[in-house]
Amino acid sequence: MNSLCVSIEMRSFRCNNNSRDGLRTAAAQKKCSRQLKLNVSAAKTSNGPKIAIVGVTGAVGQEFLTVLKERNFPYSDIKLLASARSAGKTQEFDGSTYIIEELTEDSFKGIDIALFSAGGSISKKLGPVAAAAGSIVVDNSSAFRMTEGVPLIIPEVNPQDMAHIKIGKGAIIANPNCSTIIALMAVTPLHRVATVKRMIVSTYQAASGAGAAAMEELRQQTRDVLDGKPAEPKIFPVQYAFNLFSHNSGMDVELGYNEEEMKLVKETRKIWSNSSVKITATCIRVPVMRAHAESINLEFENDISEEQALEALSKFPGVSIINDRKNNRFPTPLDATTQDNVFVGRVRRDISRDDKKGLDLFVCGDQIKKGAALNAVQIAELLL
Amino acid sequence: MNSLCVSIEMRSFRCNNNSRDGLRTAAAQKKCSRQLKLNVSAAKTSNGPKIAIVGVTGAVGQEFLTVLKERNFPYSDIKLLASARSAGKTQEFDGSTYIIEELTEDSFKGIDIALFSAGGSISKKLGPVAAAAGSIVVDNSSAFRMTEGVPLIIPEVNPQDMAHIKIGKGAIIANPNCSTIIALMAVTPLHRVATVKRMIVSTYQAASGAGAAAMEELRQQTRDVLDGKPAEPKIFPVQYAFNLFSHNSGMDVELGYNEEEMKLVKETRKIWSNSSVKITATCIRVPVMRAHAESINLEFENDISEEQALEALSKFPGVSIINDRKNNRFPTPLDATTQDNVFVGRVRRDISRDDKKGLDLFVCGDQIKKGAALNAVQIAELLL
Repeated sequence: MNSLCVSIEMRSFRCNNNSRDGLRTAAAQKKCSRQLKLNVSAAKTSNGPKIAIVGVTGAVGQEFLTVLKERNFPYSDIKLLASARSAGKTQEFDGSTYIIEELTEDSFKGIDIALFSAGGSISKKLGPVAAAAGSIVVDNSSAFRMTEGVPLIIPEVNPQDMAHIKIGKGAIIANPNCSTIIALMAVTPLHRVATVKRMIVSTYQAASGAGAAAMEELRQQTRDVLDGKPAEPKIFPVQYAFNLFSHNSGMDVELGYNEEEMKLVKETRKIWSNSSVKITATCIRVPVMRAHAESINLEFENDISEEQALEALSKFPGVSIINDRKNNRFPTPLDATTQDNVFVGRVRRDISRDDKKGLDLFVCGDQIKKGAALNAVQIAELLL
Repeated sequence: MNSLCVSIEMRSFRCNNNSRDGLRTAAAQKKCSRQLKLNVSAAKTSNGPKIAIVGVTGAVGQEFLTVLKERNFPYSDIKLLASARSAGKTQEFDGSTYIIEELTEDSFKGIDIALFSAGGSISKKLGPVAAAAGSIVVDNSSAFRMTEGVPLIIPEVNPQDMAHIKIGKGAIIANPNCSTIIALMAVTPLHRVATVKRMIVSTYQAASGAGAAAMEELRQQTRDVLDGKPAEPKIFPVQYAFNLFSHNSGMDVELGYNEEEMKLVKETRKIWSNSSVKITATCIRVPVMRAHAESINLEFENDISEEQALEALSKFPGVSIINDRKNNRFPTPLDATTQDNVFVGRVRRDISRDDKKGLDLFVCGDQIKKGAALNAVQIAELLL
């Protein structure tokens, strides 16, 4: 376990300097001075696993390729799968040109690891087919997250839950929802110190969670509004430019919670193997491109000081702290954009409590990276 | 007290259709069908009070004029005051052209009501001068909010605290901070039903709270980023376009709370005359123009159901409810933009509690209107 943590920690400091969306600040880029000099091509090697990417044309599918390259993931072969519409198109990867193949029930023969991100219904239909063919499915959809017997994994948090899964014997492993991953990267080290009893989360979620088209909708609407034209909502029901709104996932009309909020509740309990932790969440979509932020209030079983919290966070792999009270400098979504790490700040004793069992914090993480593709590739790394 | 409430309630449904910033949606405008047909010119009348506007060229100063007009506020004379730089310029109001005068210590002779919004240091210096000259100062700055003996007023919440103040005898009345007003418009009716013990607030605050230049910075940076140019932070320390950040007010380095957050704590206690209510807040600036949103978790002394909460909210003047779970339609900043009312939704029992003493809600209110100018003019109305 120790060597795993070290390995993840070293990788977590690597930075990706390509300024997708032109949204990175100089300040954020400066943080990349901590990056390790690594060969950033994936490692094609005859004894590596055979990989399939399901949904390669989507935002997360593309990020799978970026992350595999960045992390020098060993593979002997890679198959790029998508719908019939995209089959036949080409895709560059690791210096070679691949032809995208149509995803079918026969796609998984000989595949060791299949990274799925093609939506819940495709996962539901073809995930078990792939597992039956002997592949280990790492599924980014919500299809199997709460299924008993399917491990729900954040590699820094609960790698032990997938210890029984080995390459060569088919299985499904679920990637948690982005908001859950980002929250638990920050909260788990504190939970280990003082045991979280109750979490109250308000999110500030980026467009990317709803896919590349949602990011484009935000761009186009913003242009239109700045030009004095009316914004045209397509994917979302209300104007997104210079606005924010309750998360667009389906709502439990009886409870009044949406699916995004319930994922935070249920997935946390499964990942922590703790059915008693109390959670409430309000999930809000904000006009930001690809990194989520979360304001988190925590109530603990035991006392915890700010110093203990910061120490635990600083030791946790995949977490960076920006907590400069003097200069009022704390994490922003742009700090986290395209970064591997989750950024934590505003760590402080909750003044609404008379005891020492409360903390407030503010967390930012890249929704496509640690919230999706990176976490899935880290799961695949645990199989090596 | 009853007739006051009715009068505020009627006015609260009036809408302002001018689409400042081009940011209003058709849907938001539709809500204006509830508007009352009123003469929308202010009422110049020989027996009305003499008014002064201090800081008339600022965002809130300009909104004072809009609100006075919209609400048909009676006045016999109006004096428009600003710094020497703006003195001599002209300003249209209610069909007449006024010359802006330089603000000096002698500006307040004969003035009955002075609406101040020219920053804390000017309020500190000239507020007491105006009061000594016999004017009632309604001050929008934070200069006197926590001063003993100065009423801190939300007209729908604690009008009784200024009952002793009458036109003709100088006094200072403080307008609360925007985040406090917007939160307490939603929370006070619930507090009256079940007594709030603890509030956990996460804000989504608009550019306007930092003034017109901050709104322009958001516009300009957004244009630049969309054009692939670097964003140039000027007023705020980090990029604002497609980003969000911890509120830019000064921070108590020891506590780790910023001034905006502490205002919510301290002002709520003063307005409710309740020193025991517990509050924690995380204040975040989001890329939205002029309406704040707040995610609020409430813990009560006594049981409260969703139905009781909605009933109390529906009866409270100045509150509109958008709480359509079936269609996932809840308040957005654009719903509140240029509107008098504060919009409340996502009202639901807190599932992180085993008892019936918890609620979550989401609130939006126009920062310049109910968060500043409208609340101040409503205070002035209580003096009539």
